[in-house]
Amino acid sequence: MIKNDLFLRALNNEKVDRPPVWMMRQAGRYLPEFRALRDKYDFFTRCRTPELAAEITVQPIRIVKPDVAILFSDILVVPQAMNIEVQMKEDFGPWLPNPIRSAKDVEQVIVPNIQETLGYVMDAIKLTKEMLNNEVPLIGFAGSPWTIFCYAVEGKGSKSYDVAKSFCFTQPQAAHALLQKITDTTILYLKEKVKSGVDAVQIFDSWGGMLSPADYQEFSWQYINQIVEALADETRVIVFGKGCWFSLREMAQSKAAAIGVDWTCSPEIARYLTGGQKTLQGNFDPSRLLSPIPTIQKMVKEMIDAFGKDNYIANLGHGILPNVPVDHAKAFVDAVKMYGQK
Amino acid sequence: MIKNDLFLRALNNEKVDRPPVWMMRQAGRYLPEFRALRDKYDFFTRCRTPELAAEITVQPIRIVKPDVAILFSDILVVPQAMNIEVQMKEDFGPWLPNPIRSAKDVEQVIVPNIQETLGYVMDAIKLTKEMLNNEVPLIGFAGSPWTIFCYAVEGKGSKSYDVAKSFCFTQPQAAHALLQKITDTTILYLKEKVKSGVDAVQIFDSWGGMLSPADYQEFSWQYINQIVEALADETRVIVFGKGCWFSLREMAQSKAAAIGVDWTCSPEIARYLTGGQKTLQGNFDPSRLLSPIPTIQKMVKEMIDAFGKDNYIANLGHGILPNVPVDHAKAFVDAVKMYGQK
Repeated sequence: MIKNDLFLRALNNEKVDRPPVWMMRQAGRYLPEFRALRDKYDFFTRCRTPELAAEITVQPIRIVKPDVAILFSDILVVPQAMNIEVQMKEDFGPWLPNPIRSAKDVEQVIVPNIQETLGYVMDAIKLTKEMLNNEVPLIGFAGSPWTIFCYAVEGKGSKSYDVAKSFCFTQPQAAHALLQKITDTTILYLKEKVKSGVDAVQIFDSWGGMLSPADYQEFSWQYINQIVEALADETRVIVFGKGCWFSLREMAQSKAAAIGVDWTCSPEIARYLTGGQKTLQGNFDPSRLLSPIPTIQKMVKEMIDAFGKDNYIANLGHGILPNVPVDHAKAFVDAVKMYGQK
Repeated sequence: MIKNDLFLRALNNEKVDRPPVWMMRQAGRYLPEFRALRDKYDFFTRCRTPELAAEITVQPIRIVKPDVAILFSDILVVPQAMNIEVQMKEDFGPWLPNPIRSAKDVEQVIVPNIQETLGYVMDAIKLTKEMLNNEVPLIGFAGSPWTIFCYAVEGKGSKSYDVAKSFCFTQPQAAHALLQKITDTTILYLKEKVKSGVDAVQIFDSWGGMLSPADYQEFSWQYINQIVEALADETRVIVFGKGCWFSLREMAQSKAAAIGVDWTCSPEIARYLTGGQKTLQGNFDPSRLLSPIPTIQKMVKEMIDAFGKDNYIANLGHGILPNVPVDHAKAFVDAVKMYGQK
């Protein structure tokens, strides 16, 4: 049994004394201990070496002490396993030298054997579970099919993902074929993660907010929902779509255990759109961790007051920024832990 | 009197047979005629030479035939006039070599004499009005104080404007002083534009969607609203905030004549949030102009059906993309003009 089960209880809609807290990208560059490993090992070496991935996962648990761990990895290990070359370029980000641009390109993409291609992730999960020693739960994650598709088609990050979108609008059949392959792979991948020991999974839809509500339905949500349906009986699924406030109502009606919210949607409106009782996760503006600590403390309290302490997981509205001082990250976590105490 | 006054009637909440139509960035790179001038004259030469600015403004009126012209210029001519150096770098975008990072930097920023610093814009307006010969109305525009602030502090474009945001959160007094100087300048600038002959003005808040609703109120909306209040008796003001769905209710209660909406907010929700009768402008996804023409025609009809033909200005939800074929842009404009005809 996991000793600190606050996070699992929030996901199960059970009453809690205070909300659980973690931070997206909590295993990240704001930690000097993370930067030390980053300077020594390149990006995919860190992802592929179970000892490194596990160590990086556990670092914030030791230092900042959130209530949950999230396995260090990257959403782009999935397209990599699908026969799409992915490089990580220093000061540039992801670089896919052979982006998908035609139906013929889509044919080359495979739904892989997960153990053969992503077995290293499963090894990292097992090792991390040992290191965590049942202190806190462990989350596994994947990108949404649409977000993976964006990188696969665009070939790199983009401000508006117009190339990916125009691929959908001009070659919808090929686009749907690719989205389905990514979905099938992601379901296999997350099921394997559950078997390996994660206690919950989160789907990150980083670029869903680039789509209109109707296009979101067609090119993103229907695929996320396939994953949710396939996983819901086996584990707790959290769905987080950045900029996807327009889809919160739909997400809340799915089998997802919790829905992530970014900071552009107020707690009140998020509660209204999701019907009031669904577990929500978020939504502190990551830039607001640059505020003075007393401001952070005040804003955390206001955030929890607004969401309510139950059916709620305190988190940022997106990943923590590399330039956040560690004591500000700690102040955020501690402010949640102090909630309701005199 | 202006012959085609559909746009002005929509802004005045009068009944129309079909909505007026224009496209943000309609004087832009998708037009070969624009690219020809762009290859010959650099960016600020085009802005500063009234004959060029007027010619570029009128190009889309001749070629794509929207119901309104919008003066070719750039939002960054304002900080330039305020003693902040702005360069436009090829394949990079705006570059401000001396970004504002301290209260001392803010002190160096001036509220300029508009005729001395931006007289060339007024000359361009007068020339454009002559060339338009009262066929269609002319819009003048400015960036929102927050959006100008973002460039002034960040020094260049950014994905999330964290530097600008952290300046607000750590040096709020200096931030507000700079925002007020930009606001004061923008009011003088837009009043001068009205005197020079524009029939309406639009305020572009390109980066408002990076802020939480509470921070938007503090760092963006209160300054936009100062401009709206100062201009509302003299002209019609349109406010467009990209990603600012969360502020639509507030915007609708202001003296703005119309509110712009981007494509992530459905017409139904935009109407709901703005109370039903406010004139709205938008919100076709610019990437959707890459769809086949029959799809564009169908989607335009659906968009107008959803907004309703009255109290509505058909437009894109953001600027037109450089890779849109000219006949697709024409198809968009023509589909609006055909609305309601058999």
